[in-house]
Amino acid sequence: MDIQNIERLDQIFDFARAIDREKEIIRQTYLADGSRKEDDAEHAWHMAMMVLLFAEYSNQKIDAEHAMKLAMVHDLVEVYAGDTYAYDEEGKKTQHAREVAAADKLFGLLPDDLMHEFRGYWDEFEAWQTPEARFARLMDNMQPLMLNAAAGGVSWREHHVRLSQVLARNGRSVEGSRQIWAYAYEKFITPSLESGALIDDVHTPGQSIHDNPLLK
Amino acid sequence: MDIQNIERLDQIFDFARAIDREKEIIRQTYLADGSRKEDDAEHAWHMAMMVLLFAEYSNQKIDAEHAMKLAMVHDLVEVYAGDTYAYDEEGKKTQHAREVAAADKLFGLLPDDLMHEFRGYWDEFEAWQTPEARFARLMDNMQPLMLNAAAGGVSWREHHVRLSQVLARNGRSVEGSRQIWAYAYEKFITPSLESGALIDDVHTPGQSIHDNPLLK
Repeated sequence: MDIQNIERLDQIFDFARAIDREKEIIRQTYLADGSRKEDDAEHAWHMAMMVLLFAEYSNQKIDAEHAMKLAMVHDLVEVYAGDTYAYDEEGKKTQHAREVAAADKLFGLLPDDLMHEFRGYWDEFEAWQTPEARFARLMDNMQPLMLNAAAGGVSWREHHVRLSQVLARNGRSVEGSRQIWAYAYEKFITPSLESGALIDDVHTPGQSIHDNPLLK
Repeated sequence: MDIQNIERLDQIFDFARAIDREKEIIRQTYLADGSRKEDDAEHAWHMAMMVLLFAEYSNQKIDAEHAMKLAMVHDLVEVYAGDTYAYDEEGKKTQHAREVAAADKLFGLLPDDLMHEFRGYWDEFEAWQTPEARFARLMDNMQPLMLNAAAGGVSWREHHVRLSQVLARNGRSVEGSRQIWAYAYEKFITPSLESGALIDDVHTPGQSIHDNPLLK
């Protein structure tokens, strides 16, 4: 048979090959068993699964499948821009400009209609405005929080992370789901405060570590 | 705040942690640059992206987001059953029984409603009956075919794979998309026949390797 419009298929496959590099972007989060750090593709898959699994807990009703798509594409630009660790304050200053340039280059591989569609998912995640983006961004934080707790807080210990930094990173997590944030604080954060893996620079002497500062 | 129904959240998070092991199931497919083999989580993410990217090429109109969900969960049972290489004929004899037992165990971690939902995606993929399952299964084959071609056919070379085996594995690929199968045969398979990475035990002397045996 003849293959119709072979150039279009070439373009989509070029993109499909380019994003393969997402597997080579190593994050600071360890697998649940602590054996090694995970990569961006693993993170995106796991986070997208969690979007589907926990969608019912969103503060606002969401289209879970749409939120899943935001999760799938949210880190794609790192194939050109690299990963910026959540607590790397220097790297974060240039992160947005680097990522926009990478987005132009990466999504530009696609035919125009698909370029707009997939760039749109990335822009929506970045803009943090829709209920689906809020929930996907919550899961972008909850997935490493869950893994880091399972691995005994090793990633926080390595980087001498303080509770105030975790709270700053999660300042908008309650916009995604108050229920899940409350659960994560109690189940994933307080054990690391108790073990010393996470430095408590927030609670005053005599105050319980179970007081969740983002749920006042 | 009080966390409502904490047992339900415990169950869903237990499942979310259990599937982390999908990152430790190593496949026989190499990354596009040939640097290492990929794992199940990376494969599922990449394949789910390709479902979205290529959905327009499905023979039958599909709900691309539904097909993406089938792709996301299709290998989950391997966290308990392990990966079975496509050309491991011994392993394939016990594969189905091992995977059903693993599915009972894994999806059983979830609350009943979610267990039925996610088990349903896995069952649908396995049953290969719906247009979405046909397309997801096509992409389950196209993703490694694309990577293996990009890496020079190294996986086929290592396992002395013959064209007749590739064709048997792809016997139903044309049910997903005749266009994409035609493209993949020409772009991903014939170069490996030419280089000798894939052994041609199908074409007769004088017959062109560009004759696609599944499109007669």
